[in-house]
Amino acid sequence: MSHLPECQTLLLELHGGVLHITLNRPDSRNAMSLQMVGELRALLAAVRDDRAVRALVLNGAGGHFCAGGDLKDMANARAQGAEAYRELNRAFGALLEEAQHAPQVLICLLQGAVLGGGLGLACVSDIALADHQAQFGLPETSLGLIPAQIAPFVVQRIGLTETRRLALTAARFDGAEALRLGLVHFVEQDAQALAERLDEVLQQVLRCAPEANAATKKLLLASAGQPSSELLDEAAQWFSAAVTGAEGVEGTMAFMQKRKPGWA
Amino acid sequence: MSHLPECQTLLLELHGGVLHITLNRPDSRNAMSLQMVGELRALLAAVRDDRAVRALVLNGAGGHFCAGGDLKDMANARAQGAEAYRELNRAFGALLEEAQHAPQVLICLLQGAVLGGGLGLACVSDIALADHQAQFGLPETSLGLIPAQIAPFVVQRIGLTETRRLALTAARFDGAEALRLGLVHFVEQDAQALAERLDEVLQQVLRCAPEANAATKKLLLASAGQPSSELLDEAAQWFSAAVTGAEGVEGTMAFMQKRKPGWA
Amino acid sequence: MSHLPECQTLLLELHGGVLHITLNRPDSRNAMSLQMVGELRALLAAVRDDRAVRALVLNGAGGHFCAGGDLKDMANARAQGAEAYRELNRAFGALLEEAQHAPQVLICLLQGAVLGGGLGLACVSDIALADHQAQFGLPETSLGLIPAQIAPFVVQRIGLTETRRLALTAARFDGAEALRLGLVHFVEQDAQALAERLDEVLQQVLRCAPEANAATKKLLLASAGQPSSELLDEAAQWFSAAVTGAEGVEGTMAFMQKRKPGWA
Repeated sequence: MSHLPECQTLLLELHGGVLHITLNRPDSRNAMSLQMVGELRALLAAVRDDRAVRALVLNGAGGHFCAGGDLKDMANARAQGAEAYRELNRAFGALLEEAQHAPQVLICLLQGAVLGGGLGLACVSDIALADHQAQFGLPETSLGLIPAQIAPFVVQRIGLTETRRLALTAARFDGAEALRLGLVHFVEQDAQALAERLDEVLQQVLRCAPEANAATKKLLLASAGQPSSELLDEAAQWFSAAVTGAEGVEGTMAFMQKRKPGWA
Repeated sequence: MSHLPECQTLLLELHGGVLHITLNRPDSRNAMSLQMVGELRALLAAVRDDRAVRALVLNGAGGHFCAGGDLKDMANARAQGAEAYRELNRAFGALLEEAQHAPQVLICLLQGAVLGGGLGLACVSDIALADHQAQFGLPETSLGLIPAQIAPFVVQRIGLTETRRLALTAARFDGAEALRLGLVHFVEQDAQALAERLDEVLQQVLRCAPEANAATKKLLLASAGQPSSELLDEAAQWFSAAVTGAEGVEGTMAFMQKRKPGWA
Repeated sequence: MSHLPECQTLLLELHGGVLHITLNRPDSRNAMSLQMVGELRALLAAVRDDRAVRALVLNGAGGHFCAGGDLKDMANARAQGAEAYRELNRAFGALLEEAQHAPQVLICLLQGAVLGGGLGLACVSDIALADHQAQFGLPETSLGLIPAQIAPFVVQRIGLTETRRLALTAARFDGAEALRLGLVHFVEQDAQALAERLDEVLQQVLRCAPEANAATKKLLLASAGQPSSELLDEAAQWFSAAVTGAEGVEGTMAFMQKRKPGWA
């Protein structure tokens, strides 16, 4: 089992192959501080090669997911100058890249504020569940700033057409609209319905084989744009490895014997 | 007129410029055998340069479209080793590439099982019509396998966001959900409504000029991602060729004379 | 303030940072003549570096947005031969590229005919508002022609799946369907509701900082496909420039002082 790093801004709970991660800075609506960025990156790295951790569930303490960047870090960077801003900003983008490519299934539970960087995190999840009253938005341009590390992930998530309106108007929207935009997969009416939906989704995820899921996720992320012959060539080799590997042998045998496979 | 190849796994019927292709292995819910893959590829090649074949309508015998890969072929490949799996898998991807780029308008009629490779075929159609009770899904990861040749086409069809949930949970979904996801264009309540919708769509397709449709389809497939100046330069030459060619002359003349063009 | 060029095919009205542009050839349902293309391109160039012009609102005189290419220009080109067609066609594509990349927020008001090139213009807007009775479509292939400069922008706007059906069937669709397809952001029941929605959207746009919006739009357009590390590196520099620039200083100060920033 993975050795999980010590975290001051995150609460961690691992059971049944699922690592529950709670952003825990409720006083600032879980604003994404440099420390929190660092702890999340360390955590993702720690579980990266551990296929016993099958899913990551990310949520926020105190009724909010994440309200965006941390104002204190911003003030500190101002004291240090432009280069500090660049590094602060880029570190958050590195977190988004690493979360996007986590081999585990990443599930976000979205309540309350899902703004700026919080919206960016939601956009790299594999499965997103939202409370209908959650408040989404990209407020940056109304502050004279730009959603620099976030916008590319929003474009990939919901497309250029919707992103341009949201980013250029700083408009807020709720969970139902987030579903319509294709940002989230499910919207629920209250905390209990959210919890039930999470259970259902986790059961589905755990039915799928861990190595196969990790390889499939890698393939999906490599599939942006036009399907290329080169990618399909490579994918055929991955398929061959999967079907002749332990999971493929167990999975097809379980199917023929009409029983559950070992991982389920 | 094209000389159609002999087929043992397909039923063929050509009339009025429309080639109706029925996957005909109902005992295995039209599972995609290597032989069927070969026959479909030969058929697409045979009609490729024949503009008198204006549309291809693909459906399945016995109430199912296609339940995915064939288990017997898989068992044979297991006997031969990893390389046989790679080839088996890649051949299906080649079929998807060739079907995607068929100059004809490819229409899929989706009923019953539309799973794995069947879903892949649906994803390269120009127009997809589904029965509301059709069952769609990517079961691969629940079998320890990966949707290797299929996933890139699903990502292109419905986007990364929805594909990652479906592929990493192996969730099933019906025709109404397929419409919501943008996988199909129409969902109908029964076989008669499907047949009527097919008639309507075919009438629309036959109103469009065959060479113009083939050139337009090629342009659309080349348009993935950001519109590039190079593509627009090339497209302007295609436009010039179209407008000065036989169809462009006939089409604009018919428009001015308020009559139907020759191809309609 | 920008010196606006003299225009014979356009009506211009600039107030409150918003340039209202009316396509004014109502006798031909504002068909896009070479002259109109030239005047629109000159206008976009004239305001390009003027951040006091915050938004461009494009609509059509006489109840129609734009019915497509101009038949007289087509007839003239026919007299001159294939090269004239190529140039005519490519000039319109250049307009679409330049409108797509205008630093201002481009808003289209879509009523009546939104066909061919008119649909292309709608597809490069940042925010599109449609009357529910507007008539959208790509009629080219039914005339033996191809939507050569337009199709790449339609694919980018609504995706390959929907575009292939629309382009290969020449089907018409209304405002509600345009909303469902993600082509427009709002659909309204009448002219007054359209005007009210436009006011609301303009208020949102004017709340956002002009330089920040221009930089964000550039970032979004560069974000097609997979978010790349190179783009995120560059974006971090843009962020640093924004936050240390005049707008970033004013925006964050206004936020702390709980007052509106200077640009709002």
